[in-house]
Amino acid sequence: MDPRLLSSSAALRRESAALPGHTRAHNRALVLQMLYRGTPLSRADIARESGLTRVTVSDLVGDLLREGLIVERGIRPSNGPGKPAVLLEMARDNQQIVAIDLSGHDVFRAVLTNLDGEISEEVSIPSPGVTGDEAASLVDDLLEWALQLTTAPVLGVGIGVPGIVDRDQVVRRSISLDWTNRSLAPALSTRFGVPVSVANDANVAVLAEHSFASGGDDLLLVKIGRGVGGGLLLDGRPVLGSRLTAGEIGRVLVCPSTGSEAVALESLITAPTLRKQIEKAVIAGETADAALQRAGQVLGSALAPLITSLGLTSVVLTGPSEVIGDVLIDATREAVDASTADDVDHVDIHVTPLGPDIVLRGAAALVLSERLGIV
Amino acid sequence: MDPRLLSSSAALRRESAALPGHTRAHNRALVLQMLYRGTPLSRADIARESGLTRVTVSDLVGDLLREGLIVERGIRPSNGPGKPAVLLEMARDNQQIVAIDLSGHDVFRAVLTNLDGEISEEVSIPSPGVTGDEAASLVDDLLEWALQLTTAPVLGVGIGVPGIVDRDQVVRRSISLDWTNRSLAPALSTRFGVPVSVANDANVAVLAEHSFASGGDDLLLVKIGRGVGGGLLLDGRPVLGSRLTAGEIGRVLVCPSTGSEAVALESLITAPTLRKQIEKAVIAGETADAALQRAGQVLGSALAPLITSLGLTSVVLTGPSEVIGDVLIDATREAVDASTADDVDHVDIHVTPLGPDIVLRGAAALVLSERLGIV
Repeated sequence: MDPRLLSSSAALRRESAALPGHTRAHNRALVLQMLYRGTPLSRADIARESGLTRVTVSDLVGDLLREGLIVERGIRPSNGPGKPAVLLEMARDNQQIVAIDLSGHDVFRAVLTNLDGEISEEVSIPSPGVTGDEAASLVDDLLEWALQLTTAPVLGVGIGVPGIVDRDQVVRRSISLDWTNRSLAPALSTRFGVPVSVANDANVAVLAEHSFASGGDDLLLVKIGRGVGGGLLLDGRPVLGSRLTAGEIGRVLVCPSTGSEAVALESLITAPTLRKQIEKAVIAGETADAALQRAGQVLGSALAPLITSLGLTSVVLTGPSEVIGDVLIDATREAVDASTADDVDHVDIHVTPLGPDIVLRGAAALVLSERLGIV
Repeated sequence: MDPRLLSSSAALRRESAALPGHTRAHNRALVLQMLYRGTPLSRADIARESGLTRVTVSDLVGDLLREGLIVERGIRPSNGPGKPAVLLEMARDNQQIVAIDLSGHDVFRAVLTNLDGEISEEVSIPSPGVTGDEAASLVDDLLEWALQLTTAPVLGVGIGVPGIVDRDQVVRRSISLDWTNRSLAPALSTRFGVPVSVANDANVAVLAEHSFASGGDDLLLVKIGRGVGGGLLLDGRPVLGSRLTAGEIGRVLVCPSTGSEAVALESLITAPTLRKQIEKAVIAGETADAALQRAGQVLGSALAPLITSLGLTSVVLTGPSEVIGDVLIDATREAVDASTADDVDHVDIHVTPLGPDIVLRGAAALVLSERLGIV
């Protein structure tokens, strides 16, 4: 068979998944997206903005009301002779999401959120050095515990995992959890009777920044922890790549100093390495800032070609607050500026405002995207 | 107004454009895409693969048959007691596309293609140094001439322009044509009564590589001409970015040699610069290859961080054959290999098999995408 046909049919299947063949699901997502992002709308508003017929909209709205995903809230008086319009909005607290973050150094966290990704309850289980089946069993316990705290129907469970997760939500490889080709979702979903979605921790973090902060549409998120992870969003869509590694800036080679041999970025700017470098700097009679400035220098030099050739508008950093702060950001920005031919004033380089909850919020955004088509 | 709301509503509008609110157009594109890429299919095959109902499929197929976009061709005997199935396929020669390339050094070219992007007729107009209104008027003449040669209804006109073209197909800026905010499509469309689509030359070239060659789903196309252009495709979708510059690798800073000051890639590897460097090398008693090897070296060093952090599987070069060949490719590949921490055996770096027609074929692919939703 012509390999082009194979690859085209793979592209088509993906396309079908993104553009649901099931029209109804597509239209439903369109209506939900409109109500999720904006002010309350009438059925007529929705029909006008979506291009769907009034009949289709009434039908979809009826279903969404019955499911409790939206509510009728208030009335807009008519300007003319027509009837006043009933306004619709998302029922943001009628359902809950369970969001789980497995990327912590020695703890697995779970929270309950509403449909806005606002956290109401949190539970966590210490997981120092726990890997393999034992780690999976802790996830089981954590989810059971979180579900006991729910006070409304559960829309879904989202899990952010440090490692490579494929499009079928299988964890291909997680070094820190020592997982290979582990399929978490089906077992959890069967056991607890709720839909479960799994994705890479940096990839859900970029969803959180896009959905709940001001991340913009062309956004690279750099997650500094035990390793250096990255998540990429271009034209407002998450990008994964056929190798599932889009955004993974950690493997880019950089020169730690002029004339030195190039090494992978992640060997220089993980959280543990940065802490060590700060310690060393202090012992050598320098300030901690000197070490962070050097780190910003190499990070900026790795970011510059990406910013230039992708036209990125935002780079967002997340990581422990003792290393990810103004000093690192300023040095990074300076290095980006020095390493690009163009003016980069339009590029916003900042620490996420979502703090240490970014993966949890992202896991909630993953559920909104997978279950309701809201991105 | 909260800037988030603004940016979200922009994202929503874009989303609506990509996922047409008009369901029918979406389903129609889905059916066309299936017939375009694959072997002949029956109505039942289409319903099964698309998830659409039999009634919807019959209805859409009826329309497409009447429009002459598809034909019934042959019958597949039944395996069981059912009726034999009538097979459908694209009517690849029932309509023609006019594709225009304005990126040539001193010529504007136009061709007619069938729906497979296969070229049947070519016309061209010399355009040495022609810019501004005069250039626009040459495009007028060229299109009029090309339309006179058509022997079937015209699906649409696609134009590849060297410069920044926005999502509304306005040429924001073309240095070589001296155009600023020029809206080509509406006037041409009105005058000739055909739909006209306009995009950047490298961005249509990447469509051509994806549609008509073996470019893969994560592809950077580098177009070496008077400047250095780039087009990017990730997860099988063209990526433009909010600044319309995604893929523009020419502005990435590189070091021409160890210890030298960094300069923009495009100042080193345009076609004229490469020709000059070859000349100089020969005068200095070196071979032409030595100059091309140095060029490959800097190109490879600029590509490496992109390949690594996007997980690209293909990098495709296009440009004049006396500079874009095996020597440049081999040196580029070597430099990429030396500048990445990972094994890059999976990355296919090659010269486009589409030759100097790549922008024309891409302009045809643009029409297929804009008019029929085929990508």
